[in-house]
Amino acid sequence: MRFTSCLTRAVQTRAQYTATIYRDRERSWAEVGQRVARLAAGLQSQGIQPGDRVAILALNSDNYFEAFFAVAWAGAVSVPINTRWAPAEIIYALDDCSPRLLLCDENFVGLVPRLRQETAAGIESVVFMGEGETPAWMADYESLIAEHEPAADAGGEGEELCSICYTGGTTGFSKGVMLSHTNLLYAAVNWIASLHFTEETVFMHSAGFFHMAGSIPAFALTLAGGTHVCLPKFDAELGMRIIQRHRVTYCLFVPTMINMMLNHPRSQEFDLSSLRYIEYGASSMSESVLAAALERLPDCTFIQGYGLTESTALSLSLPWKYHFDSEHQCSKRVATGRVAFGMEVRITVPGGGAELPRGEHGEISLRGPQIMLGYWNQRELTEAAFCHGWLCTGDGGYMDEDGFVYLTDRVKDMIVSGGENVYSREVENAVYKHPAVKDCSVIGIPSEEWGEAVHAVVVFKEGGSASYEEILEHCRSYLAGYKCPRSMEVRDALPLSGAGKPLKAELRAPYWRTAETV
Amino acid sequence: MRFTSCLTRAVQTRAQYTATIYRDRERSWAEVGQRVARLAAGLQSQGIQPGDRVAILALNSDNYFEAFFAVAWAGAVSVPINTRWAPAEIIYALDDCSPRLLLCDENFVGLVPRLRQETAAGIESVVFMGEGETPAWMADYESLIAEHEPAADAGGEGEELCSICYTGGTTGFSKGVMLSHTNLLYAAVNWIASLHFTEETVFMHSAGFFHMAGSIPAFALTLAGGTHVCLPKFDAELGMRIIQRHRVTYCLFVPTMINMMLNHPRSQEFDLSSLRYIEYGASSMSESVLAAALERLPDCTFIQGYGLTESTALSLSLPWKYHFDSEHQCSKRVATGRVAFGMEVRITVPGGGAELPRGEHGEISLRGPQIMLGYWNQRELTEAAFCHGWLCTGDGGYMDEDGFVYLTDRVKDMIVSGGENVYSREVENAVYKHPAVKDCSVIGIPSEEWGEAVHAVVVFKEGGSASYEEILEHCRSYLAGYKCPRSMEVRDALPLSGAGKPLKAELRAPYWRTAETV
Repeated sequence: MRFTSCLTRAVQTRAQYTATIYRDRERSWAEVGQRVARLAAGLQSQGIQPGDRVAILALNSDNYFEAFFAVAWAGAVSVPINTRWAPAEIIYALDDCSPRLLLCDENFVGLVPRLRQETAAGIESVVFMGEGETPAWMADYESLIAEHEPAADAGGEGEELCSICYTGGTTGFSKGVMLSHTNLLYAAVNWIASLHFTEETVFMHSAGFFHMAGSIPAFALTLAGGTHVCLPKFDAELGMRIIQRHRVTYCLFVPTMINMMLNHPRSQEFDLSSLRYIEYGASSMSESVLAAALERLPDCTFIQGYGLTESTALSLSLPWKYHFDSEHQCSKRVATGRVAFGMEVRITVPGGGAELPRGEHGEISLRGPQIMLGYWNQRELTEAAFCHGWLCTGDGGYMDEDGFVYLTDRVKDMIVSGGENVYSREVENAVYKHPAVKDCSVIGIPSEEWGEAVHAVVVFKEGGSASYEEILEHCRSYLAGYKCPRSMEVRDALPLSGAGKPLKAELRAPYWRTAETV
Repeated sequence: MRFTSCLTRAVQTRAQYTATIYRDRERSWAEVGQRVARLAAGLQSQGIQPGDRVAILALNSDNYFEAFFAVAWAGAVSVPINTRWAPAEIIYALDDCSPRLLLCDENFVGLVPRLRQETAAGIESVVFMGEGETPAWMADYESLIAEHEPAADAGGEGEELCSICYTGGTTGFSKGVMLSHTNLLYAAVNWIASLHFTEETVFMHSAGFFHMAGSIPAFALTLAGGTHVCLPKFDAELGMRIIQRHRVTYCLFVPTMINMMLNHPRSQEFDLSSLRYIEYGASSMSESVLAAALERLPDCTFIQGYGLTESTALSLSLPWKYHFDSEHQCSKRVATGRVAFGMEVRITVPGGGAELPRGEHGEISLRGPQIMLGYWNQRELTEAAFCHGWLCTGDGGYMDEDGFVYLTDRVKDMIVSGGENVYSREVENAVYKHPAVKDCSVIGIPSEEWGEAVHAVVVFKEGGSASYEEILEHCRSYLAGYKCPRSMEVRDALPLSGAGKPLKAELRAPYWRTAETV
């Protein structure tokens, strides 16, 4: 299995069709194939050897897309860097994997001197792949392409390392997830099988390429031979304009983004009728968001996906037909999904080990061809992540009799209050049902009385509001008393990770910091 | 990658749905899961150890389907035997791989004493899995299931050997193609991605399970969680009755079989309206067959597939949309297809090596995750099959600018006449266009004048006929003079292999045998 075979197939079978669109620039697969092979030679001219790490720090663009493949084509290992990180976090990752070369765009060019100075090994070469003028001390992306003949594919295969992807900061310091050629190619074909990518798919990349939700659809769509529309980052109005302009057929969003587009004051001005599929993740769709989405996008099919960086994205999926009641099965809309093709899922006692009976809460464990090689430079953490060959996801959930998995919470996010287990997700779902609530996140905060107390962080809709007492009364009609929030705070917005998940650690920090110092 | 994960997914997510249908017997996925794990324990009780070969000699049935998975579940290697073989050919294969156990049905029970006697190693155990009474000296399939508790999955994974499949006799003596867990699981997910299997698919297995065209769709449909309808062997009327009775949605046929159903005198009595997909292979669909099929099955989509046992089936496919002219591309109906996801295809000089420019005739070479581990016990033949890591298929063809591959002929079938290369397929296509011709096969026969002469073997439609001179004149309007048949023989039917391909070696033999003795 060769990661680069995604690209060679597209170049062989879709040469004259549009591969990438970015701003006013369109490139065919024939062009992209040429450019990647030339850029690979250019990277080799900069000293890149097989196995070397090459970091990429940029917002989404057609060049970023090419860089993924050029690094592999040169036999090297791509390291996409989280663009939301603070400099200290970037420096941590660069020190961890010591890349020989960095590709960056105009948004990060000002940061590079500091990165070179403050990383232990420095960075030998920097290539500018952004818009505008290339700084004199950087190599120029287009020149590397223009000045080199196409290289032969030096990419590895099978279990060889192809990419290192750092996991987000929601669970502590970041770890470099090592993904092999097999992991990436299998994930790409599995995505096609599960999520209906075809050569006619026009996909808008609004999730960052540094994240699995950005990169894996990019690889899968390449394998399918479709068209990539690259958005630097998500913005509701820009997204709708791009969908209209390029007749985008497929998007990947978190439900919050769908909400932002539906509720945007200019929403009705845009023609979104080309959309056929929306893959969504990070959380289930509430009934009200789903209903609103269907009214606006009646021809659109929604599919939920769930996965980790450690499982090369898609590991569970919830097909459209299970979002509704039908003759033969009840609605599974609040489920996260069923196991993806060739992957295996189990609910085990937290920490791994014995499989639990259907319906019992435990930890979601995964096995299969998409599971990472391990964490870069972290043998102990790698061993700790597995139990009898199964990856322990750290996500809590249960499985019903039909094999559907219900994500309840991060295992470590579970709130233990008065000796009872409270799953934040369940409380959030209840709070969310209040008509004034736009968004919410539920955490455990220290409590002398209960050990931990359930605390709700709430964002109200424009013009909406509710008192703590009103929210509490509302929740009581959905939840047992011990699950209801004992306190509430109101915010303008929730802090979100690059994947659109609430940064619970950030919400929790002030409460626990105080508790520790006291 | 674990082959058995196909089954565990179906059991986990489709427990109460119908897994297999055979005669009047229906089994759910929950039942099949239980039966497979119990049968695996039963096989272990018969002395089966991990890595042992277990041969299966039977027509298609639900039990055969279970046996595939039970053998893997026990950690052993399945060896499905070609049911069309003569006893001597079966004995050759059994001697080659020395199975410890044989599973057989009522159609082959009479042959077993001879097989035990004439194989060098004998066969330790025989399990009867057919209908009717179990002979006293054989173990009973249902008893093995009833008397054992479910075994834990002892199946291997990754590059470990999972199955040995002997290739047909069209190319000389048979060779045992070694397929790994990765080969089989990847082929299954690739099939889903390319050929639209879903959990709602009801597939009629009319191709023998001993053949890739029978087994790989069985594994893919299991991964998808669909329903298997097992037919002991293809018969036009029985096939139509089964399609009607079980509302079959998907079939795999060679064009000859489609023809047989369309031209069957009782064809119109059967309701085939449930059919949505027909995958076909072994040859392209002629325009007339396609038109007739569409008239009878207007809601049906046809997809061509091409593959070898050595490439775990599907390596090229021709989607439905390319069967017709459309605004943007000319018809590719006579193409064999484009490369499957994750596989790579090249046209090279015959025997492998340098890639040829588009449009030039050469040998089709393949690379990717479905390529076999090698031939069992045949290191030299294995080495000879590969060139620089690419599998040389022995099939001749060319590739157009859009990456579509056109199969012209077996490389060794190519006729060299008067110093010119003549590709049999091209001549056959011309002969086929004659209105009286039902089927034909073109071979090279010895000629003092030309080295080899082009010879046509022709089958006429009922009531149809044509003289050699008429066929020749007909061909002249399609072919250069040197390509036209120099002689013709008329037959009632062509001898066909288990895969429905004409047995050219058999057609050629009498001519060359004479030449050699003279």
